[in-house]
Amino acid sequence: MNSSSSDGLERYQTHEPENLQERYAHRAAHMKPSEIRSLFAVASRPEIVSLAGGMPNLSAIPMDMMAGIVEKLIREHGQEALQYGSGQGHPQLREQICDVMALEGIKANPDDVLITTGSQQALDLISRIFIDPGDVVLVEAPSYVGALGTFAQYEASVVHVEMDQNGLIPEALRQAIKTLRYQGRRIKFLYLIPNYQNPAGVLLPADRRSEILDICRAEKIFIVEDNPYGLLGFDRPSPNAMRAEDSENVIYLGSFSKTIVPGFRIGWALVPQSLKEKLVIASESSILCPSNFSQMAIASYLANQPWREQIASFCALYKVRRDAMLSALDAYFPKAATWTKPAGGFYVWVTLPPEIDTKAMVPRAIAAKVAYVPGTAFFADGFGSWSLRLSYCYPTPERITQGVMALSKVVEQEMLNRGITN
Amino acid sequence: MNSSSSDGLERYQTHEPENLQERYAHRAAHMKPSEIRSLFAVASRPEIVSLAGGMPNLSAIPMDMMAGIVEKLIREHGQEALQYGSGQGHPQLREQICDVMALEGIKANPDDVLITTGSQQALDLISRIFIDPGDVVLVEAPSYVGALGTFAQYEASVVHVEMDQNGLIPEALRQAIKTLRYQGRRIKFLYLIPNYQNPAGVLLPADRRSEILDICRAEKIFIVEDNPYGLLGFDRPSPNAMRAEDSENVIYLGSFSKTIVPGFRIGWALVPQSLKEKLVIASESSILCPSNFSQMAIASYLANQPWREQIASFCALYKVRRDAMLSALDAYFPKAATWTKPAGGFYVWVTLPPEIDTKAMVPRAIAAKVAYVPGTAFFADGFGSWSLRLSYCYPTPERITQGVMALSKVVEQEMLNRGITN
Repeated sequence: MNSSSSDGLERYQTHEPENLQERYAHRAAHMKPSEIRSLFAVASRPEIVSLAGGMPNLSAIPMDMMAGIVEKLIREHGQEALQYGSGQGHPQLREQICDVMALEGIKANPDDVLITTGSQQALDLISRIFIDPGDVVLVEAPSYVGALGTFAQYEASVVHVEMDQNGLIPEALRQAIKTLRYQGRRIKFLYLIPNYQNPAGVLLPADRRSEILDICRAEKIFIVEDNPYGLLGFDRPSPNAMRAEDSENVIYLGSFSKTIVPGFRIGWALVPQSLKEKLVIASESSILCPSNFSQMAIASYLANQPWREQIASFCALYKVRRDAMLSALDAYFPKAATWTKPAGGFYVWVTLPPEIDTKAMVPRAIAAKVAYVPGTAFFADGFGSWSLRLSYCYPTPERITQGVMALSKVVEQEMLNRGITN
Repeated sequence: MNSSSSDGLERYQTHEPENLQERYAHRAAHMKPSEIRSLFAVASRPEIVSLAGGMPNLSAIPMDMMAGIVEKLIREHGQEALQYGSGQGHPQLREQICDVMALEGIKANPDDVLITTGSQQALDLISRIFIDPGDVVLVEAPSYVGALGTFAQYEASVVHVEMDQNGLIPEALRQAIKTLRYQGRRIKFLYLIPNYQNPAGVLLPADRRSEILDICRAEKIFIVEDNPYGLLGFDRPSPNAMRAEDSENVIYLGSFSKTIVPGFRIGWALVPQSLKEKLVIASESSILCPSNFSQMAIASYLANQPWREQIASFCALYKVRRDAMLSALDAYFPKAATWTKPAGGFYVWVTLPPEIDTKAMVPRAIAAKVAYVPGTAFFADGFGSWSLRLSYCYPTPERITQGVMALSKVVEQEMLNRGITN
C-alpha cells in the first residue's frame, strides 16, 4: 500500500506529466477531487466528532434478520441471484419500488422504473443523456455536492437559484430562466431535492411544488426530483412528491440507502416513458446490469419485513439527534449565527457572519476535534464561504452536543479574531 | 407491466416526439439498442438452444458455501458491509486482486487498483477520461459488443484492426496507426482481449503481445487489456498478461464474473499510477462507491475458499462443452464454413460463405430452435455479415450438439437457396 495515500490528504497533490494532460479528454479537466473528500478521511478518526458525513446510522437495522435474508436468498435462488440480470433491473423489485413511491402519492408503472447502482448512477445517466458542454443545469443554492461533481464532469454550466427557509423560491426560478433565455442559453433541467434538502435541510411546501412544476412545464424544462430523504419526516409525512402531480416532465430519483441500507447500492429513476429507452441503453453501456443479488436482497426485505416500521425507527433515531443538535446550537452558538430547523433528513445549514471563511476554519475545527463541511462545497460558483453543513445522522446525541459545543468555541474565537461582536 | 415490452422485441420501436430529440445531448443519438438485445429475450425461451449468450455456468458453484459466506459476513461485519464504502474500493479486496493477477505474471500495488461495478464500468470510466468526440479507439476485428456500445456513446471513431487465428496482427496495427496519423487523427487507445477473445475465441501468443506492447509504447497509445477469460485456459495457462510486461502503458481490466459469479458485479481496473486519481474521481461521480457488501463477499470467498480449484472445475466444465461444440461443427457443418478452435473461454467464431447474411438468417435459426449472435454485432462498421458467434458456456453438451445440428441445417438450406455448393 502506498502510505502517502493512507490518510487521503496528499493523494491528489501528485502532479501528472505534462504530456498526459494532452492525452485526456476535454472533460477530464473537470475531474477534480471534491472539497469534502480529504475532509472525510480526517473526520473518520475516532477522536473527532464528525458532523461532516452523511452516513446513515445502521444501529437500527437488525443484523440477524439481514443475515437470514441473504442466506435464504442464495440457498433458494442462488442461480438467479448470482447470475447476470436485466439492464433495466429486476421486475419484482421494480414493482415493489412502485409501492414504496405510492407512500408519497406517486402512481407509477414498473416498466418506467430503471434500477441503478445508487441514485448517483441515475444522476450520471441523466447527465449523459441531456448535457452537452455549456448546457445549463439549474440547481438550488446550495445543492448536493455529488450532483455538482457529476454535472461538472459533463461540462454543464451550473446556475444556482435562490432558496429560503421554504426551499427554492419560485420567483427566483422565473427570473433565472428569463435571464438565461435572454442570453440564449440552453437550459436542460432543474435539479432539486424537495424534502429535507442536502445540505440545507429545508422542506419545499406543496404550493411551491405546484408553482415550480407549472413554471418548468411551461418552459419545457425537465425537473429532476431527487428524493432520498422523503420518508424521513420526523413529525408528519412529507408533501406529495412533485412526480405525483406530473408524470411527463419530472424525472424522479429514489434510493434505499437511507431507508434500508446503502451497502447494496440500490437506487432508481422513475422516468417519463419517452426517456426510458435511452436511459436503459445508457445504463447498460455504463454497468451492463445492476447486481441481481443486491436487488433480490432488497426485494426479499421489502416482501418479508415490516419495512414501514423500520423507517419509523430510523425517524425516531434521527429525530433525537436532530433535537440534540438544535438544542446545542441554541445553547452554545453565537447569536450572530443562524441555522435551518430541519423537519426530517440529516442536515442543518449554518450561516455565520460573512467575514468568516468556513473553509479556512476547518483545520481549527479539526484541532478542536470536530468536523463539518464548509459551504463552498455546495456551490459551483465559489459562493457559500460563510456557511457550513452539519449532519446529525451518525453520532450519538451526546457526541453531537459535544461537537457543537467545540465548534461554537472555534466560531467565537474566529469572530473575536476578526473583531466581530456577537 | 407494459405487456408490449415483455418479449423485448417491440420495446425499441417507439418513436419519440420530435422536440424531445432536440432536448437530448448530442451523444444521445449514439444510444441505440445493440443488435443482440432483442435476440437475448427470444433466446431465453426454454425451447430454444441458446448459443447466443455469454452467461457463465454457475452449476459448478456450491450454493451452500456461498449462502454461508454472505450470512457470516452480515452477522460479523454487517455494519461495514451494509454501509457506504470508499470510492476506490475495499482495501482488503484490492490486495487480494493483486494475488489473483499474480497468476498471470502481474506485479501490482493495491493502491493502483480501482474496483468497479463489473469491468463494464471500468470501460465506461476509461472512455470518459480519454475520449473526445471523433477520437480514434483501435479495436480488434471483431470486438466485444459491450465495449463498442460504450465507445459509441462517447462518440469515439472506432477503427478495427485485422486479426487472424492468433489474434491481432501486429503489422496490421502498425499500418492502421500509420494511416490514421497521416490523416491527422488522434488515437486514444488500443482496446483488446488477448485471451480467448470475445467473440473470436482466439489467443494472442506471447511474441505478438511483446510486439504490440512495443508498437503502442513507441506511438504513445495506451493499451486497454480486457481480460475476463485469462484464467479459463483449458489445457495450459495463458501467456503472461500484457500488463506483466508494461506497467506504464497498459490499463488492465479484470472481472470476477467468469471466475466466481457475475451477480455481485465486481470487476476492476489496474491502472498506471498517473491515471488513478482521475479514474477514482470519475467513478465517484458515476456511482459514488462500489457495493461494500459485494466486495466483502468476494473478499471472504477468496480468503476462505479454494478458489483456484473452483476455477479448475469451471475449466473442466467449459472444456467438455467446447469439445462438444467443435465435434458437432466437424460432424455437421458444411465444408464451406470455417471456425476458430478456442483453447479457453466461451466462444467460437464461425465464418460462412460471403453470400450468407447471418443477421437475416436469425429468424430462420430461431424457427429451427437455435440462437446465435450475428457477426455484425461485433463490428462498428457494418462488417461481419457472413460471420456469427457461437457460445458453448451455458447449455449442456447434449443441447450444444443438438443446437449445432439444427443450425447446420439452416446454413445448408441458406446455401442451397443462394446456389452455393458445398
